[in-house]
Amino acid sequence: MTDLTRLIHPRSIALVGASDRLHSIGERTLSNLLDHSEFDGEIFLVNPTKTEIRGQKCWPSVAALPVTPDIAVIVVPVAGVLAVAEECAGRGVPFAVVLTSGFGEAGEEGEQAQVRLKAIADAGGMRIYGPNCPGLTNVNHRLGLTFSPSFPHDLIKGPIGLATQGGGLGRNVMQAMDRGIGIGLWASTGNEVDLQVADFIHYMADAPDIKVIVTLLEGIKDGAKFVAAIQRAAANGKPVIAFKVGKSEYGQRAAQSHTASLTGSAEVNSAVFRQFGVIEVDDIDELVDTAWLFARAMPGPEDGIGIYTSSGGTAALTADAVGTRGLRLATFAPETRALLKELLPDYAAIDNPVDTTAVVLSDAQLIEKTLGAVASDPNLGCVIVPITLDYGETTIQMARTIIAAQKNCTTPIVPIWMSDRMGEGYRMLVEHGFAPPRSVGKGLSAVRRWVAYGRWKRSQSGVSAVTLTSVLPPASATRSVSELEGKRQLREAGIAVLPNALARSQEEAVAKAAAMGFPVVAKIASGQIVHKSDIGGVQVGLKTAEQVAAAWVDIMASAAHHRPDATIDGLLIEKMAPQGGVELMIGVTRDPVFGHVMTFGMGGIYVEILRDVTRRMLPIGAEDAAAMVREMRCFPLLDGARGRPRADLQALKALLLKVSAFVVANADRIEEMDLNPVWLGAEGEGALPLDAVIIERAEQKASA
Amino acid sequence: MTDLTRLIHPRSIALVGASDRLHSIGERTLSNLLDHSEFDGEIFLVNPTKTEIRGQKCWPSVAALPVTPDIAVIVVPVAGVLAVAEECAGRGVPFAVVLTSGFGEAGEEGEQAQVRLKAIADAGGMRIYGPNCPGLTNVNHRLGLTFSPSFPHDLIKGPIGLATQGGGLGRNVMQAMDRGIGIGLWASTGNEVDLQVADFIHYMADAPDIKVIVTLLEGIKDGAKFVAAIQRAAANGKPVIAFKVGKSEYGQRAAQSHTASLTGSAEVNSAVFRQFGVIEVDDIDELVDTAWLFARAMPGPEDGIGIYTSSGGTAALTADAVGTRGLRLATFAPETRALLKELLPDYAAIDNPVDTTAVVLSDAQLIEKTLGAVASDPNLGCVIVPITLDYGETTIQMARTIIAAQKNCTTPIVPIWMSDRMGEGYRMLVEHGFAPPRSVGKGLSAVRRWVAYGRWKRSQSGVSAVTLTSVLPPASATRSVSELEGKRQLREAGIAVLPNALARSQEEAVAKAAAMGFPVVAKIASGQIVHKSDIGGVQVGLKTAEQVAAAWVDIMASAAHHRPDATIDGLLIEKMAPQGGVELMIGVTRDPVFGHVMTFGMGGIYVEILRDVTRRMLPIGAEDAAAMVREMRCFPLLDGARGRPRADLQALKALLLKVSAFVVANADRIEEMDLNPVWLGAEGEGALPLDAVIIERAEQKASA
Repeated sequence: MTDLTRLIHPRSIALVGASDRLHSIGERTLSNLLDHSEFDGEIFLVNPTKTEIRGQKCWPSVAALPVTPDIAVIVVPVAGVLAVAEECAGRGVPFAVVLTSGFGEAGEEGEQAQVRLKAIADAGGMRIYGPNCPGLTNVNHRLGLTFSPSFPHDLIKGPIGLATQGGGLGRNVMQAMDRGIGIGLWASTGNEVDLQVADFIHYMADAPDIKVIVTLLEGIKDGAKFVAAIQRAAANGKPVIAFKVGKSEYGQRAAQSHTASLTGSAEVNSAVFRQFGVIEVDDIDELVDTAWLFARAMPGPEDGIGIYTSSGGTAALTADAVGTRGLRLATFAPETRALLKELLPDYAAIDNPVDTTAVVLSDAQLIEKTLGAVASDPNLGCVIVPITLDYGETTIQMARTIIAAQKNCTTPIVPIWMSDRMGEGYRMLVEHGFAPPRSVGKGLSAVRRWVAYGRWKRSQSGVSAVTLTSVLPPASATRSVSELEGKRQLREAGIAVLPNALARSQEEAVAKAAAMGFPVVAKIASGQIVHKSDIGGVQVGLKTAEQVAAAWVDIMASAAHHRPDATIDGLLIEKMAPQGGVELMIGVTRDPVFGHVMTFGMGGIYVEILRDVTRRMLPIGAEDAAAMVREMRCFPLLDGARGRPRADLQALKALLLKVSAFVVANADRIEEMDLNPVWLGAEGEGALPLDAVIIERAEQKASA
Repeated sequence: MTDLTRLIHPRSIALVGASDRLHSIGERTLSNLLDHSEFDGEIFLVNPTKTEIRGQKCWPSVAALPVTPDIAVIVVPVAGVLAVAEECAGRGVPFAVVLTSGFGEAGEEGEQAQVRLKAIADAGGMRIYGPNCPGLTNVNHRLGLTFSPSFPHDLIKGPIGLATQGGGLGRNVMQAMDRGIGIGLWASTGNEVDLQVADFIHYMADAPDIKVIVTLLEGIKDGAKFVAAIQRAAANGKPVIAFKVGKSEYGQRAAQSHTASLTGSAEVNSAVFRQFGVIEVDDIDELVDTAWLFARAMPGPEDGIGIYTSSGGTAALTADAVGTRGLRLATFAPETRALLKELLPDYAAIDNPVDTTAVVLSDAQLIEKTLGAVASDPNLGCVIVPITLDYGETTIQMARTIIAAQKNCTTPIVPIWMSDRMGEGYRMLVEHGFAPPRSVGKGLSAVRRWVAYGRWKRSQSGVSAVTLTSVLPPASATRSVSELEGKRQLREAGIAVLPNALARSQEEAVAKAAAMGFPVVAKIASGQIVHKSDIGGVQVGLKTAEQVAAAWVDIMASAAHHRPDATIDGLLIEKMAPQGGVELMIGVTRDPVFGHVMTFGMGGIYVEILRDVTRRMLPIGAEDAAAMVREMRCFPLLDGARGRPRADLQALKALLLKVSAFVVANADRIEEMDLNPVWLGAEGEGALPLDAVIIERAEQKASA
C-alpha cells in the first residue's frame, strides 16, 4: 500500500487550472483552498493565461514551479488533463488529484483517455486520485482539495473517516454531521483509475484522529487490497461500517450503468464483510445510526441492554425491539434495583425496562438519580432512552438530565428521538454529541450491529492476516477431474472418503465389490459426465454380486443412450455410505475479486429452495469453520434438537478446514469444487464427501 | 356494535369535575372545551363546590341538569368516579368519558373499582370510554374531550383516523402531523373497560371524513369485535395500518406489566391481520410512512415503480431497494422514453431508474417536463423521487418542481428526503402534503405495503363476512380421540384417508392386513398414547403376514414397557402410503381471542426448525387456501422446481378447505387437531392425512 501521508498532510499544493472566473471549478477550488482551508504549506497557482489571481503569483506550468509540490490538484478541462498529468509525472509530483470529469464515465473516448491517464501515472510513479470526483475533504486538518460549495460548511471535526466511490451519496453522509458528530476526512475516489476506497480505509486504519471508518461501495475492484485494508482496520480496533449497493438485479444493473463496473456477487461481498468483522448495513440511514453510535463509544465486554423511559407503551415497544433483534435485556444489579424501588413510585416498573411513568417527569433530580443509577449498573452495555414525544419544556429537561447523567458514567446512554417534531430537546442532544437515532427500530438495529461487532472482536483471538488464494481472470477452458481421481486427491489431502475402485469390466466390478464388501454403489466413470444421476448413471444399495452385474448392464446402456459421445472409463464401485446421517454440501468457486470462496450448507433440494447456506473467502480458520456451522438455519438439527442424535460437528469443522487447505494448496489449478452430498454422521461417525466434482483450469494459458 | 355517532358528534356535553384551578385536569379539560374547541352544542359544567366557573353556571350534579347530555366527561378524582358514574347511568347519559386514572392499572383496589365501574355502566346501558386515558381528540370537528395541553396545537384536519390503547405512543403518532397530513380523529381508549379500539375502527370504517385507519395495539380483548371492525374497513375500501407490540417475549412481558393484559400470540395476530388485509408494520416510524402514503393516494391497478433522481449512486441504491423488497421497476411507455431521450443529455440514464445527472438540476423546466412525463406514464403505480441532499436553493427548486408536476398527474410522486439536513425544501414538501419518508429503505418499505394492499384488495372478489368459530375459555379437561375414530370422522367429512381397521388380536391384525393388501403400517391403538412413534408404537412397510405378526409382538412389548399405565385397544392396521410425495402438516388450535386457527406447512422435523408454516383464522375461503399454499417458503418444491413432479395442489387446497369446514362444524367440541404428516402426491395423486390427532373438550362443563 502506498503511504498516503503526503496526500492527506501535504507540505505544498499546486492548483492547476486556478481561476478567478466566478463559479468556475477553478475558482471554487481556489476559494476552498485560500478562504476555507487552514493550510500552512505553500500553494502554487498554475494557469498559463494568467500572471496573477487574487493577488497571488500564477505560474505558467507545473514544470516552471520553484519546488515540486506534494500534490497537484488538476481542474483543467478534460482535453487538457493528459498533458498536465504528463507534466506533473515528469516533475516527480507524488500525487495528482484529478477533479475533472469526462473519463471512464463518458463513453468510449473517455475510457481511452482514462487508460492513457493511468499509463502516464504508472510510468512516472505518480499516484492519481480521481478523476471525476468532488475531491478530498479534510475536515480535521481543514484542507479542501475540492470544488464543492459545501466545503465551507463542513466544519465539525470528528472521529469518523468516510471513504466513498460516488460523490452524491458521500455528500449525503457528510450532511449527517448535522446529527452532532463530525467526519474528519472524506475521500470520494470517483473513477478510481488508481487510488481506491481501500487505500483510504487502509490509511484511516492507521490515522490517529480516525476511530470509525465508514464506506460506501458500488463495486470492489481489487479484492486483495480491500481485504488487506479491512484487516488492518480490524487489527487496529477500528470498526468499518459498509454499505454496498447491488443486492438485487435492479441495483446491480443501475450501479453498472452508473459506474460502468460490475458490483460483484452480493453474497460473496457480504460473506467477506462478515468474515473480517466489517459491519454491513442495508441503507444509508442505518449506516449513519450505526457509525455515529460507534463514534460515541466502542462496545465493552457486557452486552446487556437497559431501557429507561417514562411511557409504558414505549417500554413495551422498545423491549420488543430488543427481543426481535436477538439482543438481551440486562438484569439489574441488586443495588440498582433497590435504589429504583426506593426512589420511584409504586406503580412505576423498576425492572428492566424501567418505566418511571410520566407523572415523575417533572422531577428532574429524581430522573437524573434513577437514570444515573441504571447507566452505572455494571451489567449493562448501553442504556436506551427512547423519547416518545416532544413535549417542549418537559423534554428539554429530559435532554438536560441525559446530558448530566452521561457525564458521570462511561456506559453510553442512547437517547432515541421518536417524534416527527424535532424541537429544542433534540437540538440539545445533538449539540452534546448524542446523535440520537430517530426510531426505536433503527436505533436498536444500530445497537444490534454494535453488540455483534463487540462479540466478533472478542472472538478474534490472534487471528493472523489472511491472503487471498488466487485471483485470476476467468479460465478460457476447464476440465473436470474424474471422481476416482478427485477422491484420490482428497484422500491424499487427509480428507476421509469411502473406499472405491474403478472397474473396467463387468467381472472386475463384481470382484471389486465383493472384495470391498457389500452393500456398494456403482457410478458411471467418465470425465465428460458430471451429473451422473441425471442420465441414470448411479445405482445405490447393491447387496449382491448379481445386483452389481445387473447394474453394469443397466448403467452402460443408459450412458450409451444418453451420452453416446462420452468416453466411458468403466464403473466406479464404492462402499455404500452408512445408514442415517444428514446430507450437507460444500462447494468452492473462484470469485473474480476475492479468489476462492467456499459455500457450505444443507444438501439436496433444500440448498436451492431454502438457501440455507453460508460462505467464506478461503483460507478459513478454525473460528470461521465453527461460525459457518453455527450460521446454518438448520444448525439445531445437527446440535441435537428434537431428540435427534448430535451430529459429528468436530469432524465437520475439520472437514471444512481440510477442504480450505486443499484448495489453497491447489489454488492456481482449482476453478470449482462440489462435494455434494457430504454425509455427516452422529458424534464419532465422521463426515464423508460422497461425491466430489473438481473442475480445474485447463493447461493452456488463460486469456484475460 | 354500538353507534358512536353521539360520542363523536355530541349535541351536549357535561364536564363533571370542571375546575378553574390552574393546571388541574378539570381546568385543562374545560379550557380545551371552551377555548380550543368549536363546539356549537351545549356545555354543562358540574361541580358541587362551585356555582360558577369562568362566568358559566355550575351545576351541583348530573341529576340536576336541565337536560340529559349526550356525553358526561368525568375528571373527578378516582374516589368519586363510581358515584358520578352511577348518577350518569341513572340519568340515562349514553356515553361517559372517564379520564381519571387509578383503575385497572393501579393494583388490586383499582381493579375492583374498574369491575364496579363496568357493572354500573352495564346496568344502566351506558357506554364507557376509558378510564385512565387522555381522552378523545376530534380534530376534524374541533372538539377536545381531553386534558392534554397539546390539543390546542392539534390543528391539522385530515383523512387519518387513529385508534390507540396507550396515550404516549398515540401522541407520538399525533406529532407526525408535522409531516404535513393531519389526523382527523384520535381515540385513545385507555383501560378499555367497555369501548375498545375495535369500536373506533368500526366507527372510522363508516366515517366519511376518514380514509385511512391507523391503530396501535398492546392486546386484543375481543377477537370477534376486532375482526368485524377490520372487515368493515375492508368492505368500505379503507386500509387499516396496525402496529402491535408483543412479537418477542420481552415485548409481551413489558406490555403485560404495562396494561395488565396478555398480548396474545404474535403469530396468530399477524395471521389474522394478513387474512383480512390489515397492513402490519414493525415500528411507529413505519406506521407513519405507510399511513401517510395511503393518505396521499390509494394504490391503483398498476404496481410498477418509477425512479427519478439526479444522482447515479442514489439511482442504484433506490433500484436496489425496489429489488430487495420484491417490487417491480416499471418499463416506460415508448413515448416517455422518447421524450426523455430527446430532452435529457446523452450521459443521463433514461431507462428506469432515470438519472438526470446533477448538471441538469439548474434547469427547472427540463426537470419539470421530464418528471412530468415519467409521472404521467400509464405503466406506473408511483414515482419515487429520492432527494439525496439538501443543497439549499437547488433543492428548493426541486421541491417546487415536484409540487408543480404533481398538480398535473394523479400517480403519486413520492419524494424521499434522504439527508439529515432538513431545510426549506423539506418544509415546502411537507406544506404541500407530500409527507416525505426519510430514508430510501423506509420509503420503499411503505411502498411495498401499499402495493401489497392493492394486490390483496384486487384478490378479494366478493368475499363474504367471516364469523369466528368459537371463542371459549381454556378447557378444564380434554381428551384425545382415537386415531381410528378421528379418521372415521375425517372420512365422514369428505376427507380422504387410507383404509384402516382396528385389530384386537395378533390373528385379527394379520387377517385385516391381508384383506387390505400389503404393504401396511401397524400403529398402537390407545386413547392415552398420542406420540406413538416415540414409544416404538409404529412399524411401517410390513409386506407379509409374518411381518405383521412380528410387529404385533414388538409393539405390544414396547408399549407395555414404556406405558404400562395405558389401556391398549389393539393395533391399527393401515394401508401403507404410496411411494414418493412430500410430507406436510395441518394443525388447528383454539386461540383464546380469535377461536380456531389453522397452521399449515412443511411436515417432519423441518416444521420446528425452519418454521416454514403459515396460519389463518377459521373458517378460510378458497382464496385463503390458495394464499396459504403459496406463502410456504418451500412452495417452489411443490410447484415443480428443480425438475420435481408438480404436487397435487388442487387436492391440497381442497383438503385445507375441508379441514376448515370440519372444524367449523365441530367448533364447540374440537380443542386441537394435528394432521401430521399429511402425504401430498404428484398431480392427480391426492393429499392424505396419514396421522390424525383430535383433542376434544371433555363433556363436563368448562370453567372459566
